[in-house]
Order: sequence, then C-alpha cells, then structure tokens
Amino acid sequence: SGLVLVKNPHLDLMEEDVLYHLDLGTKTHNLPAMFGDIKFVCVGGSPNRMRAFAQFMKRELGLAGAGEDVADICAGSDRYAMYRAGPVLSISHGMGIPSISIMLHELIKLLHHAKCRDVTIIRIGTSGGLGIEAGSVVITDTAVDSSFQPRFEQVVLDDVVVRSTELDKDLAEELLACSRDIPDFPTLIGHTMCTYDFYEGQGRLDGALCSFSSEKKLEYLRRAYEAGVRNIEMESTAFAALCGLCGLKGESCGFHLL
Amino acid sequence: SGLVLVKNPHLDLMEEDVLYHLDLGTKTHNLPAMFGDIKFVCVGGSPNRMRAFAQFMKRELGLAGAGEDVADICAGSDRYAMYRAGPVLSISHGMGIPSISIMLHELIKLLHHAKCRDVTIIRIGTSGGLGIEAGSVVITDTAVDSSFQPRFEQVVLDDVVVRSTELDKDLAEELLACSRDIPDFPTLIGHTMCTYDFYEGQGRLDGALCSFSSEKKLEYLRRAYEAGVRNIEMESTAFAALCGLCGLKGESCGFHLL
Repeated sequence: SGLVLVKNPHLDLMEEDVLYHLDLGTKTHNLPAMFGDIKFVCVGGSPNRMRAFAQFMKRELGLAGAGEDVADICAGSDRYAMYRAGPVLSISHGMGIPSISIMLHELIKLLHHAKCRDVTIIRIGTSGGLGIEAGSVVITDTAVDSSFQPRFEQVVLDDVVVRSTELDKDLAEELLACSRDIPDFPTLIGHTMCTYDFYEGQGRLDGALCSFSSEKKLEYLRRAYEAGVRNIEMESTAFAALCGLCGLKGESCGFHLL
Repeated sequence: SGLVLVKNPHLDLMEEDVLYHLDLGTKTHNLPAMFGDIKFVCVGGSPNRMRAFAQFMKRELGLAGAGEDVADICAGSDRYAMYRAGPVLSISHGMGIPSISIMLHELIKLLHHAKCRDVTIIRIGTSGGLGIEAGSVVITDTAVDSSFQPRFEQVVLDDVVVRSTELDKDLAEELLACSRDIPDFPTLIGHTMCTYDFYEGQGRLDGALCSFSSEKKLEYLRRAYEAGVRNIEMESTAFAALCGLCGLKGESCGFHLL
C-alpha cells in the first residue's frame, strides 16, 4: 500500500498522539493536511544545515520567492527543526543514536498519522572518511557497529532486541547514478560504521579525555577498512534499523569533509 | 590542586586544540581570560532552557541589567548553546549519551585549557519519575544502566571500557539541604536509570514503534524501583563517568514534571 508500518497496536487506540519533541500532535494539528503529500524526507544533524538544505530544495524545485525564508514547523520546540520545500521535508536530528532515535520515532508516527504513501527518507550528514578522498560522499549499503557487524542492538525494557541495518540497495544505486551527472563529485557505495561517541568511540588521539596507542588505532582502522567500512559517523545503525522496522525506503549518505 | 585532570598526554603537545562543536579553540580564543574564573557549570538538554537558567542566575546574583539579554558564547555553532552569569556557565547538551559526551569532552578540555580550579558541575534536566510525587527533584547518588548496574560502558576502538557512575555524595547532601529552605519543593536522593532511547528504551507503550506487554513493563519498573531507581533519563551514566574520570565534582538533578 506504500503506507508506513507502525507495529504498535496501542497507537491507533489512543485518543491523541503528542509528538512532543516536534511540538506537533494529532489533536492540535491536521497532520494529513499538513504532511499528506510528502514524498521525500531528508534528515541531518545540524538545524542550520537542514534549513539551508530546504532553501536549496525550494530554489531547485522553482518554489522559492526572492529572498523568501523557510519557516521552522517545529518552532515551538528547540529539540529539532523542520522545514518543507514542496514534497520534501528537511529535519534536523541532533547528534548520536538516542537523539536521531527520538526524532525518527516521532517522524515515522507523523508519516503514519498523515497517511503518507511511498515516502523515501535520506540521511545527509558529514562523516569521517576511511581511506577515501576528501570531498567524497559515501552511500551506505549497510550500517555496521563498532565490531563491524550489520546490527543495531536496542534495549527494550530488559530485552536486547537486535535489528538488521541493511539499507535499500536499489536506492543506493539510484543515488550513485545521480552523482555521475555531477563533475568532480567522488561518490562510492560502502559500509558505514556507527559509534556511540565522537572522541573515544572514534579513537581521536588528540581529542579524547583518555589515552590510547596510535598503533592500536591504526590496526583497528585497518581492520575496519578490510571489513568494507568507508566512513564513520554516529547515527546510521539506528536510522537503518528503524527504516527497516517500518518499511521505509531509506538511504544514508555521508560527506567526508576533511 | 583543584585543576581538571585530562589523562591524555597528547593534549598538551598539540599546537592547537579546536573545540569544534563549541566553536572555540586554544588559538582563536584566550580561554584562561574568558573562562579562568568559572566555578560552576550547569548543563541541561534544551538550549532555550539553559539560556533561561543563565538569565535567572544573573538576576539571582544581582548581575542583570534591566531587560539585558545573555549572549550565546557558542553562537558560531548550532550544536550547543553556552551562556555565562558571573562564575556560572550554563550549557546545553542535546539529548542522549553521545550528544552529552561530545559536549563534556570539549567542556572539560575547555576547563583544562582555561586552568579553572575547584569547578562544580551540575546537570539540571527533566526526567521521568518512578514512584515519586509529580514536581519532585531527584538528586542522583549513583547513575545506573538498564540492568540497574552502576556502570557506563564505552567502546574505545574495540575495547569495552567500563567506568564507575557514582556521583559526589557530599554535593548531593549539600543540594538536598538547599532544597529544605524552599517550601513545597519535594526533593530526594536516589538512583537514576539512564537509557539509550526515550520510547522503546523506556518502554513507552503509547509512543514506541514496536509493541510490548504492559505486564512486562510494570514488572520491569517494579524491579527498577526495588533496585533504588527513582527516575529515568538519558545522560546520567555518561555524565557521572566523565566527571569521575576527570576528577570533577559533579551531581545530576532530574525534575519529574508529570
């Protein structure tokens, strides 16, 4: 049917669903009218960058009036920012798995309540590259954890639920094909490693509060590269797992800046 | 000496330390002049709330001009917001362990570079109460994980480093004594459980994307209460572990709103 799957039978029995961190709700807002025609959702960490992306999309789609700004749909909350440009929604998710997980829960319920169909969701963020050229974009085929395994472990009450972190292979190929139309835009498909921390979790010798050996770091990164990892960031396993759980066509792209 | 301990020998050998997510650095800013006299740091999730707290502190300390606003010291970054009121720094940390962990790494290095002495750090946030009156504040003696254990596990390269999550007992008693001067301000000392997710991790039947039984949830929360847990949030284990690692006197207070 193309609808989003929400495997929680409680949801449709509730009188009201408050999407607290987005400052939206089923009683306070007409979600089908506001969002029913959304076809693409782009998510990224920084609110300013997601506003700039919405402005860019408005120009690309010929929807922008001169000097016109985009309004933050979640202005009543300072947890996330949300903008729209035609059928494209642009939302920030903050940094790390818990932060993106809260946003994705509320976003996916929003798409469900709004009865959106055939939605594609793409994460666009920065990431650290591994053995790749600066300025490259890595399109994730599979997100892996710090042991290079394609899984996301989520504690639900006291059970550890393990979910798959494979992303949509067709969408990955489609995005790769798009990149070929743009000159000097190195793009590749690879695994993305997701960590719980930026400093210690990614072995930043210069930035961490503890110490570890540079030999051990190099050896670890070499093994990561051999396992197919091409970039490292902090959200992809949760993103892939929740897309998979809810039948959302999703893809994660990381831009390796340095 | 009262100085912050940073157990990374690389740090003092670096020509420059860029505190990227705070938009501060050792070459671009005179950190001792800007922050050397800081004695208290208060941290919380929401940027708006931490601005409001800095404004409140300015009034309390008699430092506020009429209608005067506080400036965001990290205005060049949209990751965190930072304000100061005399010797008090007020900083947002976003939601979840990875987000607070990045902020604390950069904050602790900031305090180190600024040669601050005898700093006390207090987390002030909202949290879900467990078997306590609405409007109560829980002062954390020990942060525990979802198995009720007083530990924080951090993957550093491929080692799992386990750190203690006990907080400063004297500071907890001091804060409890302060609360007694304020009428109708129920305050208690207890354990705080820290989860990696707001919906599934905290067993929100109504909000999660998956389903689980309410019986199992009640039984889990009963066991948590018996283990001494009085509130649930998403940052305390990382906060306690990093304070302990760096010799910072720290305490976490959670306000149970509902």
